[in-house]
Amino acid sequence: VYVVNWDVEAAEKGGYDHFMLKEIYEQPKAIRDTLSPRVNNENEIRLDDISITKEELDRINRVYIIACGTAYHAGLLGKILIEKYVNVPVIADVASEFRYGNTFIDENTLMIVVSQSGETADTLAALRLAKEKGARVIAVTNVVGSTISREADDVFYTWAGPEIAVASTKAYTTQLVSLALIAMQMATIKGTITEEDYSGILNGLNKLSKQVKSLLEKEDLVKEAAKEIYNAEHIFYIGRGIDYDVAREGALKLKEISYIHCEAMPAGELKHGTIALIEEGTPVIAVATQEHLYEKMVSNIKEVKARGAYVIALAKEGNEDIEETADSVIYIPEVIDELTSVLNVIPLQLLAYYVAVMRGCDVDKPRNLAKSVTVE
Amino acid sequence: VYVVNWDVEAAEKGGYDHFMLKEIYEQPKAIRDTLSPRVNNENEIRLDDISITKEELDRINRVYIIACGTAYHAGLLGKILIEKYVNVPVIADVASEFRYGNTFIDENTLMIVVSQSGETADTLAALRLAKEKGARVIAVTNVVGSTISREADDVFYTWAGPEIAVASTKAYTTQLVSLALIAMQMATIKGTITEEDYSGILNGLNKLSKQVKSLLEKEDLVKEAAKEIYNAEHIFYIGRGIDYDVAREGALKLKEISYIHCEAMPAGELKHGTIALIEEGTPVIAVATQEHLYEKMVSNIKEVKARGAYVIALAKEGNEDIEETADSVIYIPEVIDELTSVLNVIPLQLLAYYVAVMRGCDVDKPRNLAKSVTVE
Repeated sequence: VYVVNWDVEAAEKGGYDHFMLKEIYEQPKAIRDTLSPRVNNENEIRLDDISITKEELDRINRVYIIACGTAYHAGLLGKILIEKYVNVPVIADVASEFRYGNTFIDENTLMIVVSQSGETADTLAALRLAKEKGARVIAVTNVVGSTISREADDVFYTWAGPEIAVASTKAYTTQLVSLALIAMQMATIKGTITEEDYSGILNGLNKLSKQVKSLLEKEDLVKEAAKEIYNAEHIFYIGRGIDYDVAREGALKLKEISYIHCEAMPAGELKHGTIALIEEGTPVIAVATQEHLYEKMVSNIKEVKARGAYVIALAKEGNEDIEETADSVIYIPEVIDELTSVLNVIPLQLLAYYVAVMRGCDVDKPRNLAKSVTVE
Repeated sequence: VYVVNWDVEAAEKGGYDHFMLKEIYEQPKAIRDTLSPRVNNENEIRLDDISITKEELDRINRVYIIACGTAYHAGLLGKILIEKYVNVPVIADVASEFRYGNTFIDENTLMIVVSQSGETADTLAALRLAKEKGARVIAVTNVVGSTISREADDVFYTWAGPEIAVASTKAYTTQLVSLALIAMQMATIKGTITEEDYSGILNGLNKLSKQVKSLLEKEDLVKEAAKEIYNAEHIFYIGRGIDYDVAREGALKLKEISYIHCEAMPAGELKHGTIALIEEGTPVIAVATQEHLYEKMVSNIKEVKARGAYVIALAKEGNEDIEETADSVIYIPEVIDELTSVLNVIPLQLLAYYVAVMRGCDVDKPRNLAKSVTVE
């Protein structure tokens, strides 16, 4: 008799050691799947999911983006894009704080909630609060039929496919893409974006899937970087603007699966206290991919280097002079500043993954954590 | 010949081991000095410093509160009070992020900048940006004649007296009091506050100086708590709403003078990742002094206790049931929720101080830090 050693879980992992790694590698496809149904043959964004009209949008004078954890970090990009291209002030907040704070919600408010599972308790409560006060709610979620998808006015699905690992990866990148699409759609309807900006972002979005794939091929480089830092007790992540937001996500990723105490700081705030913690060998991950903030970031890297930090920098191809300052550099391909996070997060996810593996952690099921937080 | 061993620095410390401790103990006086010139015999707030009129205030549709480090943490209370009592949305941001982000500033914008020294480079740049765009700027500062005081439209001085220690203490508490006064003044001019709320806050403010004094008498209790945690590598601070804001300040204080990696988290966000870091004996400082959030905080404390955390809680007198959950409790006297931070921060400052002393750190001049950050 021929015995098959059948292991369902291993089969589902498709040859990868962990679901997390499999899901990291699924990102080129997840991004393509999220994007392609929304871009037509004339290379225009068409979001049948979002039915908001120009009249409604003209009335909107405040946007809230509410989420928890990784989804909140994705939401921070939505804030920047909507403020810049739709010209409406956006308040991004974590749901657990938002719902007990002072809110300015009425029928002229738009709320965008972001939740992979569509069941996050605090986010759902925020949605209900907004509906109660007459606001319109757009949900960005990955799960069809989830509570949040049922209760929102419009639902935008991230077609990431099932995410099994507790540490979210492909949900985050598809949330970023989704929020960019929503911002572009809103800006187009409202007429607040130039053709140049529109096509710049759309072309950028169209290239992301391939660029993510090319970044995944740098896995060995990231593994080398992981070897340098996996024994650390503390790791700091710094960035400015959009780069700070992705730094927060990178820090959270490493924190949740490796149990290293990671903390992200706006690079300009370092000098107001946290730099006291930098000593010989402290790893600092510096994200420096915003063109207009590049020189400032190089200065900040020099400051932590002067205190002995071991700096791994993320920079754009073309800024090779950063090698004079940082100890190790991972380059991301040419991309407009607004979309850098989709690329930056790839090495940050891989770094978190390999550090956790090197520390012998249970990557897919980190201690104390649940996949979706359905209690407050 | 009789030789006097004259030590100017020791003399200036007035018998205290460090300027920081001296300045912590100066807070009852600093609060009184900040408050008393602004409250007249009829127990009304009179801010001659702020000349803004009802007409101007009615036009203001957005307030920015911009600062760095500790002053930013104080600013967070200004946001809550102005939103609640003046009914205008407030954006609080760190200056280094604000100035490179999307801003919505025009002649209907009010900006409040907070800076002890009045020379903080990023805060000054934010002020100039606001002025350029036609906004009105109120400065809260401790230094008469500083650049920020000269360039703002209105200046509100915290009469804290010179602050020598790098770690800010009395500047922070007087900034809190100042922002409360400014919010009350704005609300009175605009007619958006009830008499009951107004007198509740004013009575609360009038009691603070004595209450701070009584809290300082609990020094030994705080010293005991410090003994339990001074060897820690990581300390987490949690809170919700106003309590989260003061938790951030407490974490920064300990970080800058003890070099322990401290991090503050909104308690409701813990489950979205950071709780993975809690293990047997990890110290968690839980601030639980907001009445409407008390039960939620007790739940969060139970969650970290279940993972082995050693919890030091701050609670209001009357909530002694918290002793069933926390390992150690420091009570603050009865105070309205809006003013708790002025009291909560006292044990947090003392805790930072004693932990740093127990670790043999140079409390007044922590490594890598300058008193005022006059470069970007």
